[in-house]
Amino acid sequence: MKRKRTREVPLGSLIVGGEHPIWVEAMGRTHPGEWRRCLEEMEKAVSSGCEIFRVAVFDEKAVEGLKIIKSQKREIPLVADIHFDLSFAFSAIEAGVDAVRINPGTAKNKNVVKSLINLARERNVVLRLGANTGSLPSYLRGEERSNALFESVGEYVELARAQGMENLILSAKSTEVEETIEVYRRLSETFSYPLHIGLTEAGEGIQGIVKSAVAIGILLFEGIGDTLRVSLTSRSPVLETEIAWKILESLGIRSKDITLISCPTCARRRGDVVSFVQRFRQKMAGLKVREGVAIKVAIMGCEVNGPGEAKEADFGLALSKNGKAVLFARGSVLEVVPQEEGVEKLLTMVKEALSEEERE
Amino acid sequence: MKRKRTREVPLGSLIVGGEHPIWVEAMGRTHPGEWRRCLEEMEKAVSSGCEIFRVAVFDEKAVEGLKIIKSQKREIPLVADIHFDLSFAFSAIEAGVDAVRINPGTAKNKNVVKSLINLARERNVVLRLGANTGSLPSYLRGEERSNALFESVGEYVELARAQGMENLILSAKSTEVEETIEVYRRLSETFSYPLHIGLTEAGEGIQGIVKSAVAIGILLFEGIGDTLRVSLTSRSPVLETEIAWKILESLGIRSKDITLISCPTCARRRGDVVSFVQRFRQKMAGLKVREGVAIKVAIMGCEVNGPGEAKEADFGLALSKNGKAVLFARGSVLEVVPQEEGVEKLLTMVKEALSEEERE
Repeated sequence: MKRKRTREVPLGSLIVGGEHPIWVEAMGRTHPGEWRRCLEEMEKAVSSGCEIFRVAVFDEKAVEGLKIIKSQKREIPLVADIHFDLSFAFSAIEAGVDAVRINPGTAKNKNVVKSLINLARERNVVLRLGANTGSLPSYLRGEERSNALFESVGEYVELARAQGMENLILSAKSTEVEETIEVYRRLSETFSYPLHIGLTEAGEGIQGIVKSAVAIGILLFEGIGDTLRVSLTSRSPVLETEIAWKILESLGIRSKDITLISCPTCARRRGDVVSFVQRFRQKMAGLKVREGVAIKVAIMGCEVNGPGEAKEADFGLALSKNGKAVLFARGSVLEVVPQEEGVEKLLTMVKEALSEEERE
Repeated sequence: MKRKRTREVPLGSLIVGGEHPIWVEAMGRTHPGEWRRCLEEMEKAVSSGCEIFRVAVFDEKAVEGLKIIKSQKREIPLVADIHFDLSFAFSAIEAGVDAVRINPGTAKNKNVVKSLINLARERNVVLRLGANTGSLPSYLRGEERSNALFESVGEYVELARAQGMENLILSAKSTEVEETIEVYRRLSETFSYPLHIGLTEAGEGIQGIVKSAVAIGILLFEGIGDTLRVSLTSRSPVLETEIAWKILESLGIRSKDITLISCPTCARRRGDVVSFVQRFRQKMAGLKVREGVAIKVAIMGCEVNGPGEAKEADFGLALSKNGKAVLFARGSVLEVVPQEEGVEKLLTMVKEALSEEERE
């Protein structure tokens, strides 16, 4: 898993691409004109790990809201999502956004696009060129979809380059995993601009989570992606932010949570693993884990894989017979204790380790 | 995404490998000695899509239960999971199981393993050789883990081959995604036996689901895997079965549910997409979709990607202004209707399509 090297593009307070972190983006559900609610939503998303916030901008009220939002929350890069009427892209730049996202399928007037590119270049605003299977340009419909996605983005990249604009981020999302992988592989081979990755309209609930994890996981594993968004049907940007982090954590790319290794349980289990794991998770839920700390905890049900995994983890509990459990820390057995006590001691050790990390 | 061709291995009523479906395996939580409860659990897992059922066997009572379970549920391949005391592998074969899974890290006595191989070969029982990072043989601990997993499986493959036993299925699961991919790539390059894939001890809830989807998704996308299991900490094998199917569906490999394309919603939404999607899902939840039917439904919030995705789907609803929505079927606009009515009509069309499929 070696990340493909992209060009560095400054986006507000962040730099996207190169060896900079793969940033988590989320999109607001609130109209930016309702700036108080929009700021609240943004605050919640940021607390859950959102690092780039995108909002839909399609009327004057939204532009007015952008000014206030940007003045109150300078540190989070703000992206205006523009379709059809590009005049709002110009006014969003005037309002102070860090990037505008336009879609080759909905931004049709090339002369206006050229003027927009010029303004963005002058103001040092990033242009995200983002295509989508649901809005391919009409002249490309009927073509094989991943090809159409690639072509439509490529055409706008050429427009930007012709104007000397290099602060670009590209995306081309399909609803299908295989098409998404195909088009991103081509974008990555062809261009050096950072790529914003995701699967579009992944749906709701478990289906959306699994489909997004598979698509984004494959791309990240191939080294593709500089920012990412998980597009889930839900009322807030918090869930999509959390899932984005879980995907990054699953590959060990970034982490801001404890990694919990626990067995599925079977007839061999020596105690109630499910409730011990749930209790542990509930009691740890409030605690902030500083990024990169990466503490691994194992809670295991029997002697088959229990001692092995508990030893490999930073802290581990392997249930054993007669209501006992073996407590491990950093690879060594600490003591044999009653199971309930073992869970409490595990919690204490992890909390202590976290507060030590905090002090450092 | 081209599946790597493996040898065909008969497993009870199924054939594993070759061009046969990638089967979904799940593991029981109940002691097989409690055969009534075990059968109930198996029934639930099978209803949710489990095709191979594995149970832990580690005492005489379990062996007795196996006989009854097997006699009452012949059609589902039954796998006995054996560690430490291999005598139960012999008696599980006598009890009629279709496969025994042994672990190179816990099945240490090579002479006993050789006799077991002979018995399995004579009885036409599959031997699954499954290694695990939590139970690596002691002489391999300290080695790089994916290498140790590979070596330990390889050694037992040689033992089996030396006895003329070829009905093997191999697995080598790590708790880490990258190690898991690495060892399965090697197994796939080295051996032609079918591979049972999965990430071990993935944990609980969303973390476990995302981590499993990423690992298994990457392997399947690389063409690796003939059976799969999702190892989630939970009280029943139903959730792991459902997630296994969602992973297969996300890649279009197999399907037994409607694919729902729906947007995450943003300020542009023309109505309450979230509740329309949830209502649709709830009303479809009871309906069985025959495998391979693969109906795609889109419920979209606005005119950016709405009409495009609704047109691409088999049936689609694109919300539009003034409380209206555009209803699509098989690529064409049917009518413009009030949104609530649109959802109901969408449901009716999908139900009709499903019952037509059922009649065919």
